[in-house]
Amino acid sequence: MYEVGLRDGLQNEAAFVPTQDKIDFAEALGDAGLRHIELTSFVSPRWIPQLADHSQVAKDAKRRDGVTYSALVPNLRGLEGALAAGLEEVAVFMSASESHSKKNINKPIRDALAVLREVTTAALSEGLRVRGYLSVVFGCPYEGEVGIAQVRDLVHALVDMGVYEVSLGDTIGVGHPGQVETISNELYRSGIKAEALALHMHDTRGTALANVLTGLRAGIRTFDSAFGGLGGCPYAPGAAGNLATEDLVFMLEAMGHTTGVDLARLVSVSARMQDLIGRSLPSKVLQAELAQRAKAEQTQTPSRTG
Amino acid sequence: MYEVGLRDGLQNEAAFVPTQDKIDFAEALGDAGLRHIELTSFVSPRWIPQLADHSQVAKDAKRRDGVTYSALVPNLRGLEGALAAGLEEVAVFMSASESHSKKNINKPIRDALAVLREVTTAALSEGLRVRGYLSVVFGCPYEGEVGIAQVRDLVHALVDMGVYEVSLGDTIGVGHPGQVETISNELYRSGIKAEALALHMHDTRGTALANVLTGLRAGIRTFDSAFGGLGGCPYAPGAAGNLATEDLVFMLEAMGHTTGVDLARLVSVSARMQDLIGRSLPSKVLQAELAQRAKAEQTQTPSRTG
Repeated sequence: MYEVGLRDGLQNEAAFVPTQDKIDFAEALGDAGLRHIELTSFVSPRWIPQLADHSQVAKDAKRRDGVTYSALVPNLRGLEGALAAGLEEVAVFMSASESHSKKNINKPIRDALAVLREVTTAALSEGLRVRGYLSVVFGCPYEGEVGIAQVRDLVHALVDMGVYEVSLGDTIGVGHPGQVETISNELYRSGIKAEALALHMHDTRGTALANVLTGLRAGIRTFDSAFGGLGGCPYAPGAAGNLATEDLVFMLEAMGHTTGVDLARLVSVSARMQDLIGRSLPSKVLQAELAQRAKAEQTQTPSRTG
Repeated sequence: MYEVGLRDGLQNEAAFVPTQDKIDFAEALGDAGLRHIELTSFVSPRWIPQLADHSQVAKDAKRRDGVTYSALVPNLRGLEGALAAGLEEVAVFMSASESHSKKNINKPIRDALAVLREVTTAALSEGLRVRGYLSVVFGCPYEGEVGIAQVRDLVHALVDMGVYEVSLGDTIGVGHPGQVETISNELYRSGIKAEALALHMHDTRGTALANVLTGLRAGIRTFDSAFGGLGGCPYAPGAAGNLATEDLVFMLEAMGHTTGVDLARLVSVSARMQDLIGRSLPSKVLQAELAQRAKAEQTQTPSRTG
């Protein structure tokens, strides 16, 4: 489980969460049992003002044994920031479609690949681990479906440059189980190992857990999620974005998988974030648990059902 | 697809939807392509005041070729009401756990079975089709997990009395894919056919579509859902209840299954219900689509994503 709430979550929230709170949340997520926590993104505050405090968060987040902190780095300058903050892992990112690449970072895929190669090489030479994000794999807001050959070639390019894992992103939440199966099969067929893959599903249309289930059955063992389901969908205000860590933990544990996450503690962490940003977070398990806690405080009499 | 929004949805909503609106919604759901619509429940208005107008709704809902209307009937008196209203299908219901049966209908399972047998026999002799609901199959709010032997024996009892299909209910939304697999396997092993089963999943913890996917792979072809995700969870105010028809349609169609449902029309129906009851419905596809419609009305420029 790869916790992206403080990065992918907060970058899509309107509210600015104070720096010390971010640092406290990172610690609380570790306390709840999360072992891979993406802290922030070393991008320009002009692009993502919510993460303008990236250097301080990355530097001051309390280190602990067994917990890996990472940060997104878009270029060499971002990598320098991550190194200065003493991180041991960084993540690079690119789009699987030309149009999204041009709209998102103003570069065609070929140029994006060159930057990623440069950053990854430099990071590896500094002894960092590098993770790769490939976005809009399951559908692009401009092009619709993205060709599977394109996805396959880009995953190979990322693995070849040395990322230890490629996280396949359903950026706009249109992915479905059939696609997870087709894409993972094609990647395996072309020589990619399941251990080199992660799924980064958005729950915009409610299919995130069905997609995770399909990935799980295809041998994938790493799934990205955001506590509380933090972070809306950038294309649809009010709609859900990131898969919620609580929902993922609930399903995996119910199915007998060990996540190491203490769900009750995690619910309390997300409840605190809700209070801070002043809106209900979309995690269904979070809301069900909070409703049960509220009920337990009132009375013990269950109501009728049909 | 079996649409339960007007019954299982509305019985869990605080607002009373006017009779004529219910009738109009039934017609609109048919227009959107739904073919099995549960209209109401012939229970006492003392128990479910939201459905106090059951006789009139069942009588006046506009009939159309290819659309089957049904209603829940708890006893012979309810069946008489359904017959008087000219329905061709009724549904009987019972709990899979003793404690839930006693709390919900104040009868132990043995007595509940006797009532169901009486009602089913009478309904069949009048030429009606009878559907059976078995609730809390995936977990009971009082007993926790329900024994699989108990579930199996009750499914057989229902099939033996002549129901054409048993809908397995995850009443409190704690079911997970592993359970769907285990339960369906045990039912098949004991001689139940996939055609005699339906899944009635609640999305309280976000797992409904993952459960549907598992059921689909196990050969089950009927799934209950409520338009918009209408109807909260009776045990957790604010939490989600019924699987949303929109979310189900989106996933099935994306995977290449034909549902016959016009998603855009259905979204408009649910949007109207939102306005009427004055709260946002939990369907993720509904919210994503409505956000996109709102955006399309404003501007065409997509925003950035990461």
